[in-house]
Amino acid sequence: MKRILISDTPNVIGQHVKLSGWVSVRRDHGKLIFIDLRDRSGIIQMVVIPDKLEAYQISKEVRSEYVISVEGLVKERPGGQEKSENPLGRVELEVEKMEIISRVEEELPFDVSKKDLDVNLVTLLDNRNLALRNRKVNDIFKVYSQILKSYGDVMREKGFLEIKTPKILSAATEGGANFFKIKYFKREAFLAQSPQFYKQAGVGAFERVFEIGTVFRAEPHFTTRHVNEYTGLDAEMGFIENFSEIMDELEAVMKRIIKDVKEKCPKELEGYGSEILVPEESFPRIRLTEALEILKKEYGKENEGIDIDPEGERLICEWAKKTHGSDFIFITHYPANAKPFYTMPSSDDPQFTEGFDLLFNGVEIATGSQRIHNYQQLVANIKKHGLNPEDFKDYLEVFKIGMPAHGGWGLGSERIVQKILGIASIKEAILFPRDVKRLAP
Amino acid sequence: MKRILISDTPNVIGQHVKLSGWVSVRRDHGKLIFIDLRDRSGIIQMVVIPDKLEAYQISKEVRSEYVISVEGLVKERPGGQEKSENPLGRVELEVEKMEIISRVEEELPFDVSKKDLDVNLVTLLDNRNLALRNRKVNDIFKVYSQILKSYGDVMREKGFLEIKTPKILSAATEGGANFFKIKYFKREAFLAQSPQFYKQAGVGAFERVFEIGTVFRAEPHFTTRHVNEYTGLDAEMGFIENFSEIMDELEAVMKRIIKDVKEKCPKELEGYGSEILVPEESFPRIRLTEALEILKKEYGKENEGIDIDPEGERLICEWAKKTHGSDFIFITHYPANAKPFYTMPSSDDPQFTEGFDLLFNGVEIATGSQRIHNYQQLVANIKKHGLNPEDFKDYLEVFKIGMPAHGGWGLGSERIVQKILGIASIKEAILFPRDVKRLAP
Repeated sequence: MKRILISDTPNVIGQHVKLSGWVSVRRDHGKLIFIDLRDRSGIIQMVVIPDKLEAYQISKEVRSEYVISVEGLVKERPGGQEKSENPLGRVELEVEKMEIISRVEEELPFDVSKKDLDVNLVTLLDNRNLALRNRKVNDIFKVYSQILKSYGDVMREKGFLEIKTPKILSAATEGGANFFKIKYFKREAFLAQSPQFYKQAGVGAFERVFEIGTVFRAEPHFTTRHVNEYTGLDAEMGFIENFSEIMDELEAVMKRIIKDVKEKCPKELEGYGSEILVPEESFPRIRLTEALEILKKEYGKENEGIDIDPEGERLICEWAKKTHGSDFIFITHYPANAKPFYTMPSSDDPQFTEGFDLLFNGVEIATGSQRIHNYQQLVANIKKHGLNPEDFKDYLEVFKIGMPAHGGWGLGSERIVQKILGIASIKEAILFPRDVKRLAP
Repeated sequence: MKRILISDTPNVIGQHVKLSGWVSVRRDHGKLIFIDLRDRSGIIQMVVIPDKLEAYQISKEVRSEYVISVEGLVKERPGGQEKSENPLGRVELEVEKMEIISRVEEELPFDVSKKDLDVNLVTLLDNRNLALRNRKVNDIFKVYSQILKSYGDVMREKGFLEIKTPKILSAATEGGANFFKIKYFKREAFLAQSPQFYKQAGVGAFERVFEIGTVFRAEPHFTTRHVNEYTGLDAEMGFIENFSEIMDELEAVMKRIIKDVKEKCPKELEGYGSEILVPEESFPRIRLTEALEILKKEYGKENEGIDIDPEGERLICEWAKKTHGSDFIFITHYPANAKPFYTMPSSDDPQFTEGFDLLFNGVEIATGSQRIHNYQQLVANIKKHGLNPEDFKDYLEVFKIGMPAHGGWGLGSERIVQKILGIASIKEAILFPRDVKRLAP
């Protein structure tokens, strides 16, 4: 008999079926044994009666998280129809055959069948394989998968080509800090901390490119917003008139992601009590200097220099929500000396840049800018940043053969799901996160 | 005026438009100057007449690969209607304004406007930014992008969840060879040479998972089939009855990819003279021992031991095409000692494995198997392979908490496009390939 999914059982009441999955909960009522069986599609209550002797004896043996296969009769659950909005609450399986596929070899550190796991972050991550079986933890990755899909869909619709760029680099570029060093046969190499140079090269060949790829950051952070390996949603677009066009595209992308998640993952959102709305209006766009003034005036917050700290980001999002009803806000025109050498200086004041950060519910999720496309200007700006153009030889090649005005963004995929669901630490939004101390599991 | 794409010009004959792109070819006929302008959507012929003095003077200056922006009148091309099946052959732009956006700073090493570049592989890769502007080279990555999309689409339709797994590992697993070593803060770490362990863990949480991710291989290869960094299309599926189900799914995936590429990329296929057919029949599936007999009998080819070499793979594909009309063939039941410890031994003869390679047009593009899901059996098999279970502590955790029968595959994305288009070296099928000697551009 071919296994069916638990979610299909309400359609086959009165029929004999085979189900397979994990034992979520087992309740021994003496005469009857009840087992909640979980597969990827849902949970069903099963009843094992002593008449089915072999199955009954096996069911005495099974424990939580055992993998089992059962055959039985799908029945309406007594009193179930009124009780439950969930269609699976209205059915149960009367077990006829049971087979244990695999057992649990040691005592489980926590009960994954609980709605909220209520364990600390270290326990959650140390016992990752088990934690991922909890419905709420599991749901994070359903939403995450939807975000990956939506990003690809909307980018393609906008004429961007998906590319894959190398993660092993011959040189630690963009200034040299924060790169992991690797031994590459007989030489030294580095792990890419962004696809920046290669996506710009992509513009030279394809005009509009996007990449979904791993990003490696050798930064010794200990925050709820940082990890050392994440999945970046990058884009770069050519033939722009100004950097507002980049914000326009990114704004449309975020609206699409939120819209799709709302449509495709309503249960997951509900589980987290997420009340995220599909933004209808344009995201507010304010200059960094304006943002600092607002922080000072509205929140009495002074900042050191022309920069905004994490607390400032949180407050300016609060302000955006209060005054514009927006979960998103663009902060534009960061100072040139705080941005990489390839960032286009502002036409009205070259102390500032044609760039932006996008904040979402208190945290920066994307950073982007127009880039310098003129070879001579780029070489001059490398020098201005105290760097040596010779170190950027390969990067500079494409600027010698005709490049359009262009720009793009880097968007952190995990921060999106973190902020949509209101998850405390980014590490919970990654299957197997990597931080300064954690390389396992 | 807002720029339109060149491909839209046939719809706006008689209208004034703005176009932007690269100068493909410029022909100075003394009185008239003809410029072929290229953007991501196509190439259009433009005419600059001396009457438009400013544009005419600028057009005297421009050279191949300059980036320019023009405004002008879209006209039917004299005699163009009969000449061309390509709608862009029927129109031309009469230029009124021209602006140079960026220039070429040095002499170009080859002419990218030619149909076939006809340069050697080193030149092609050393001048990658330029080569990628050649239509045929550029087309590889349009097909490649479609393959990435199709893989994601078909996997989702089949109920697989997209996951992203860590590329930085604490230990060099699967035996320890062929891993790049990295300096991870104060310790040593390794780059993942496959998502194997983590996708298996994914089965424990989500049943069916897929990943599109970077794979790092520290193998000092010098072949047309190997690179040291590539994009793997991985999958792992739980609750299987046997390993044929894995081949069934992979077969459906390949059929879908070929179907989509045929539908969406007809021009690109035509450019390469690719006559790839959407497979209608099942792919032949033969045991390795059978394959070796066929090679001996049909081609007089002896093999050392129970193994098939690249020449053998080529010949067995020739045989599959000749006898089954199939571009694909599964070779099954490789010897247990030639496969990783997690591979399920055959039920009928444990010297062999429940695994397969998928060959396509002469080359292995995927390898897969059922995996051992029983904790005790897995520990025993690790020891049998001369390895220490203690080194696989983190991996083994998930097998202690209930795992279903499962298996999956690793599929090389670049080999698919290579073999669909009939490209000589895999390095041509990668934007910026990495090999033992090449880390740039």
